[in-house]
Amino acid sequence: MKTVRLSIVGFGAVGQGVARAILQKKDYLAGMDIELVVLGIADRGGACVGPDGVDLKAAIKRKKEIGSVATSDFTPLDVIKDIDHDIVVDATPTNIDDGEPGLTFMLEAFRHRRHVVTSNKGPLALKYSMLYDEARKNGVQFRFEATVGGAMPILNLAHDALAGNRIMSIEGILNGTCNYILSRMTEEGLSYEQVLGEAQELGIAETDPSYDVEGIDTACKLVILANSIFGMDVTYDDVDVTGITKITPESLSLAGAEGMLIKLIGEVRDGEDAIIKVVPKLVPKNHPLAVSGTLNVALLRTDMAGPICVKGRGAGSIETASAILSDIIAIGKKEF
Amino acid sequence: MKTVRLSIVGFGAVGQGVARAILQKKDYLAGMDIELVVLGIADRGGACVGPDGVDLKAAIKRKKEIGSVATSDFTPLDVIKDIDHDIVVDATPTNIDDGEPGLTFMLEAFRHRRHVVTSNKGPLALKYSMLYDEARKNGVQFRFEATVGGAMPILNLAHDALAGNRIMSIEGILNGTCNYILSRMTEEGLSYEQVLGEAQELGIAETDPSYDVEGIDTACKLVILANSIFGMDVTYDDVDVTGITKITPESLSLAGAEGMLIKLIGEVRDGEDAIIKVVPKLVPKNHPLAVSGTLNVALLRTDMAGPICVKGRGAGSIETASAILSDIIAIGKKEF
Repeated sequence: MKTVRLSIVGFGAVGQGVARAILQKKDYLAGMDIELVVLGIADRGGACVGPDGVDLKAAIKRKKEIGSVATSDFTPLDVIKDIDHDIVVDATPTNIDDGEPGLTFMLEAFRHRRHVVTSNKGPLALKYSMLYDEARKNGVQFRFEATVGGAMPILNLAHDALAGNRIMSIEGILNGTCNYILSRMTEEGLSYEQVLGEAQELGIAETDPSYDVEGIDTACKLVILANSIFGMDVTYDDVDVTGITKITPESLSLAGAEGMLIKLIGEVRDGEDAIIKVVPKLVPKNHPLAVSGTLNVALLRTDMAGPICVKGRGAGSIETASAILSDIIAIGKKEF
Repeated sequence: MKTVRLSIVGFGAVGQGVARAILQKKDYLAGMDIELVVLGIADRGGACVGPDGVDLKAAIKRKKEIGSVATSDFTPLDVIKDIDHDIVVDATPTNIDDGEPGLTFMLEAFRHRRHVVTSNKGPLALKYSMLYDEARKNGVQFRFEATVGGAMPILNLAHDALAGNRIMSIEGILNGTCNYILSRMTEEGLSYEQVLGEAQELGIAETDPSYDVEGIDTACKLVILANSIFGMDVTYDDVDVTGITKITPESLSLAGAEGMLIKLIGEVRDGEDAIIKVVPKLVPKNHPLAVSGTLNVALLRTDMAGPICVKGRGAGSIETASAILSDIIAIGKKEF
């Protein structure tokens, strides 16, 4: 049995989802000859550590009851640096101002020769090449399937399942909140404000929805696709971004009369006519990108396999944990 | 640079597509630190071999001009057994009566400790567990992405990109010919016979279309999914199969009036209510499986990632070669 030693840094919905997945999948992983042991969990309040593995159930319970997993004097950085382990699972929240604290956590993890699996878009949207170089310099893996498309496996699809293909462009709906709002406005003829209120009540939109509805989240995901799949060297500032806040029920209705929908599309294209932008676009109703509700979808144009379309749930803690787990398993299979 | 030594057995459209892909992708592969060298190519007429690699362009030209690549006394089995190499690419045609000659070729390859990458469904639909056991016994890989869904990367998606998930069911349109025929009948109100004739003229259907239209091809693909993803131990005879030959324009039109399409759906499900069947089904027009033309689509239900839908081109020599190349690269990355 290969024993893979982890830490989980950031213990909100995603971090807890990872802990739950590790508990649920113990037998499944044993069938793949992999045992995952979590040697430390850190959150804003501190950390809990255990040389034989922390009790994940107790940590989840403690988080719920007292708001932190902390039972020791360790800080998150202490866990990353001082505990001898293999993979740091960074599940800290996305911050696109300076990428912290995730950026520092990931860099320190690499410097201590630990692989990193993350769901945090911020550091990748701002400092991808710095992170990539640090990982390579230290001979460790840097995987981040969970940053784009939630459970929709777009990065590993492009890198592994479509290996050998040149990916020429990717277009997609990469933000479930925007897709939900536009879908409901189209179906019900309601205004942006009305549907936003409904989405906030349902927990589909945040109290401050600007990160989603202004297209920022989609832009961060595009940057990650551009850098990791197309080998570009771009940051969030390079993306041409328009959100959905100006879209009216009238424009949706006019589009509908022509058999079209309006969708917030992120597009990245390589080569001479390189492009990286987020913009509401007309999409024919029978087009592969004409996907409704909170779903995400991506259309990859490739040189050999032709167009490949994938869709799935773009968010959710268990879905994001699923993407993180697939990355952990990939490292476990290759490095151990 | 890792040098991976191949043979290509079977040199029709798929085998030639693989040779072309290896030529085209030389630089791309070098960027991944992989060099592919083909030490032998075999077809019905014999084989050509070369200790430093055969000239792929010349082999394609010879095949076109004289109908065979043969320039030596080697038989296909001689190539597999006697030439020291790493991966046998079996691109022999599918035969679901006894799986030959692919079955013997693959078994001999395994016995000589060579990995096998294949596009040939026959041996897998009939003798999956025998092949799997022989590969495992000899410590080599057995990969067959190209057998299901052409360029649509369903097997590697399920095994790698969705690793950690339990796949609970797969439903899909896995035969482009049937999908083309049903799509055209629906759109044009034409009879099965009329559209079949058109599809035959376009090269979308074979002169003897029974393998496709009777659902046999879809059933073979389901068997491969059932065995390799669900760990079942089934063969072609275990599949409950109904084809599309009895479908009338009237039934399609009645379905259409209710907002439905009729599609030939392959379905495999695990657990207590296990099922493996191919049957024409009503599919709502806005359902993920409502995909038209020659496209293939698959809907995977998973325990963590939720439903994941993938679609792409189900056939074509370059698309199939793409799937074979992704398997070769996966072996190259892992074993060398």
